[in-house]
Amino acid sequence: MLKLLLQLDSSRLPSVFDQVVAYDAGADRILSQGGVTEGDVRDLVHGCIFTRSPKEMHNTAIFIGGADMSAGEKLLIAATKAFFANFRVSTMLDSNGSNTTAVAAVVKITKALGGSVKGRKIVVTAGTGPVGTRAAGLFAKAGADVTITSRKPEDGERVSAEICKRFGGTVRSIALREPSQAAAAVEGCEVLLNAGPAGVMLIPRAAWAGKLKVVVDLNALPPLGVEGVEVNDDGETREGAIAFGALGVGNFKMKLHKECIARLFTRSDLVLDAETIEDVAKELMK
Amino acid sequence: MLKLLLQLDSSRLPSVFDQVVAYDAGADRILSQGGVTEGDVRDLVHGCIFTRSPKEMHNTAIFIGGADMSAGEKLLIAATKAFFANFRVSTMLDSNGSNTTAVAAVVKITKALGGSVKGRKIVVTAGTGPVGTRAAGLFAKAGADVTITSRKPEDGERVSAEICKRFGGTVRSIALREPSQAAAAVEGCEVLLNAGPAGVMLIPRAAWAGKLKVVVDLNALPPLGVEGVEVNDDGETREGAIAFGALGVGNFKMKLHKECIARLFTRSDLVLDAETIEDVAKELMK
Amino acid sequence: MLKLLLQLDSSRLPSVFDQVVAYDAGADRILSQGGVTEGDVRDLVHGCIFTRSPKEMHNTAIFIGGADMSAGEKLLIAATKAFFANFRVSTMLDSNGSNTTAVAAVVKITKALGGSVKGRKIVVTAGTGPVGTRAAGLFAKAGADVTITSRKPEDGERVSAEICKRFGGTVRSIALREPSQAAAAVEGCEVLLNAGPAGVMLIPRAAWAGKLKVVVDLNALPPLGVEGVEVNDDGETREGAIAFGALGVGNFKMKLHKECIARLFTRSDLVLDAETIEDVAKELMK
Repeated sequence: MLKLLLQLDSSRLPSVFDQVVAYDAGADRILSQGGVTEGDVRDLVHGCIFTRSPKEMHNTAIFIGGADMSAGEKLLIAATKAFFANFRVSTMLDSNGSNTTAVAAVVKITKALGGSVKGRKIVVTAGTGPVGTRAAGLFAKAGADVTITSRKPEDGERVSAEICKRFGGTVRSIALREPSQAAAAVEGCEVLLNAGPAGVMLIPRAAWAGKLKVVVDLNALPPLGVEGVEVNDDGETREGAIAFGALGVGNFKMKLHKECIARLFTRSDLVLDAETIEDVAKELMK
Repeated sequence: MLKLLLQLDSSRLPSVFDQVVAYDAGADRILSQGGVTEGDVRDLVHGCIFTRSPKEMHNTAIFIGGADMSAGEKLLIAATKAFFANFRVSTMLDSNGSNTTAVAAVVKITKALGGSVKGRKIVVTAGTGPVGTRAAGLFAKAGADVTITSRKPEDGERVSAEICKRFGGTVRSIALREPSQAAAAVEGCEVLLNAGPAGVMLIPRAAWAGKLKVVVDLNALPPLGVEGVEVNDDGETREGAIAFGALGVGNFKMKLHKECIARLFTRSDLVLDAETIEDVAKELMK
Repeated sequence: MLKLLLQLDSSRLPSVFDQVVAYDAGADRILSQGGVTEGDVRDLVHGCIFTRSPKEMHNTAIFIGGADMSAGEKLLIAATKAFFANFRVSTMLDSNGSNTTAVAAVVKITKALGGSVKGRKIVVTAGTGPVGTRAAGLFAKAGADVTITSRKPEDGERVSAEICKRFGGTVRSIALREPSQAAAAVEGCEVLLNAGPAGVMLIPRAAWAGKLKVVVDLNALPPLGVEGVEVNDDGETREGAIAFGALGVGNFKMKLHKECIARLFTRSDLVLDAETIEDVAKELMK
């Protein structure tokens, strides 16, 4: 029986990235749907749960993606609402790769710190996007002292409140509009995770050199986001810090992403979101 | 050579139900198109008939679906218009499962009545939707005395006229707005087929108990549509009637749906619509 | 590893023709995207270049299509802009089959003339569409004396200027509104290539009989575009000219189209457009 993955994508054009990864992870066919809204979900989910017998239903699964994380969260809620009794299929939320990328970075950082982020001061720069908020939330949940930066203070405040509501812990926000403000943002922190946009250098070398224990840059396109970190860094020492570049994190993210897709097809009741994906990542890191 | 199924769906998001069934029925790849209108069909059909040699063309087929049956009928007409000479591929119309579900119910009911519905009084409640109209039409064509119910009398009149035009026979319509009116609607009938919406109880037990020879409920989501019929009923006796629930009918519908898809790929000139799908169902029931 | 073809189609509904050909040419899965605009391309291309290792990347390729050739050209530019270093995949532009059909006709005509069109007088009737402009451009580049016809003189002037800008050489345009004007348009020419709309006879027999060395009609739907040429003609002599009909050209076009798709998956840096597709066609003709 074919392994069918229903891709529910909130963006008009469904993610090609997610499709390629899903095929490489073993999905036989992808049923791709773009521009999906909450109101669409029930009928689409019924197509998954009313077509195969309960014993066969682990061969059908749902992947929720798209550029907008909060849209993805709404789709996940709508999908789980449409399930009942044993009429359900395993479902994964990873809008814009946010969960798998954030988890990969968080797990790498935690390991580099010796196994725990409890009480550590961590700044997530440009942290109001999907990846930044997921990473900040997982850090906060694990007891770190988390700060996110944003260009607009009101965005940072709104998002940090949302993160705390979702993950618990405390998350502060500060403004960071341009590279000249980076040194102040990093001051006193042990960990810097840059989640800023592709091709934008946000953190000059002088702003972080000699100050950090761990430095991570998720920007893969030159100019890179943290000056002095290389895109392939995967534990190299840079300016006294353990450094991870976008591909260093990305290689593990890809492994994690594929492992999650593969697990969707092993049972019918998995719901893979930030915390459960982190559990998978910890198993892979062993 | 791969078996390719072109899915022409009138709804914005093409049916996942139809995709899963098509894969399980043996289609190798589905070329899925959503939001298809009449004006789109010619070019899409040309993609089917101008790409493979006449000898290979039975490996390409068209499935027409979507929430709106009359939109589906227009797509079918447009598709058959685009065929010429031996430049044609087999085509099936099953908007919202209406043909296969209606046929499955009609064939089950006919068998339960001993092989014929001729002269039998049949009421199809909430019968103005795709499944209800197809079932009413097939009953009328076979000589039954058919009544459909609708919430709005003008809808019922319009739809019953359309059914008679398409299938012949006579179909009356009456209003049925709420469960308290169900007893009057069922009065004097031997067969009740409920085609009402999912999760809505339309026919209380008292309205039908002891009155009917056959009772069928197509609503699969609790609360079920006919009180006293179970979703898995497949010929059980309930309140003196032979009863079929949504999954009892649905299991045969799935078998029929898959058989129809499989037949599309055996030749190039099949047009599977209500009557021809009923022929397939009768063969399967033997 | 699966061969994945990303179909970027500028039309709302992605071409079924291109999908069927791609599957028959060996693509394992098609990632189909419709209504694609320039602004969408970068993210979609990133899904191709950031998901597989450089060594595996030749198993991913991009096909750009759609009804509008100039929209396709913009998508090709946007795609190649998103590539960098060895983060690239092979890409083919063939909006509405324009490149492969035009090349197939041009190569057939060139061979029929003994191997060169240099200095030959060629008229491309209804030559402002995707196929006509590509054919005129390739003829002009090869040194032919090319005239295109259009219903509106201003369209013809604009398009012939665009062709010369893209392909070099000189292309004139004249008006041709109806069959009665065809004789004047053909006068003095050795080659007639009709790229007019399906089902429209544009060139009566009397307009060309006895005047031409080569006559080609690309209209496959009756009434055919050049009276006296048969749809299956593939080098037959008609009224003193070597004749090719739509299917005569089309059979070679299909072979060429499939060969191009197959080549996309042999390396990561191919860009198949008119000139490079002509190179492939010449190899196939040997």
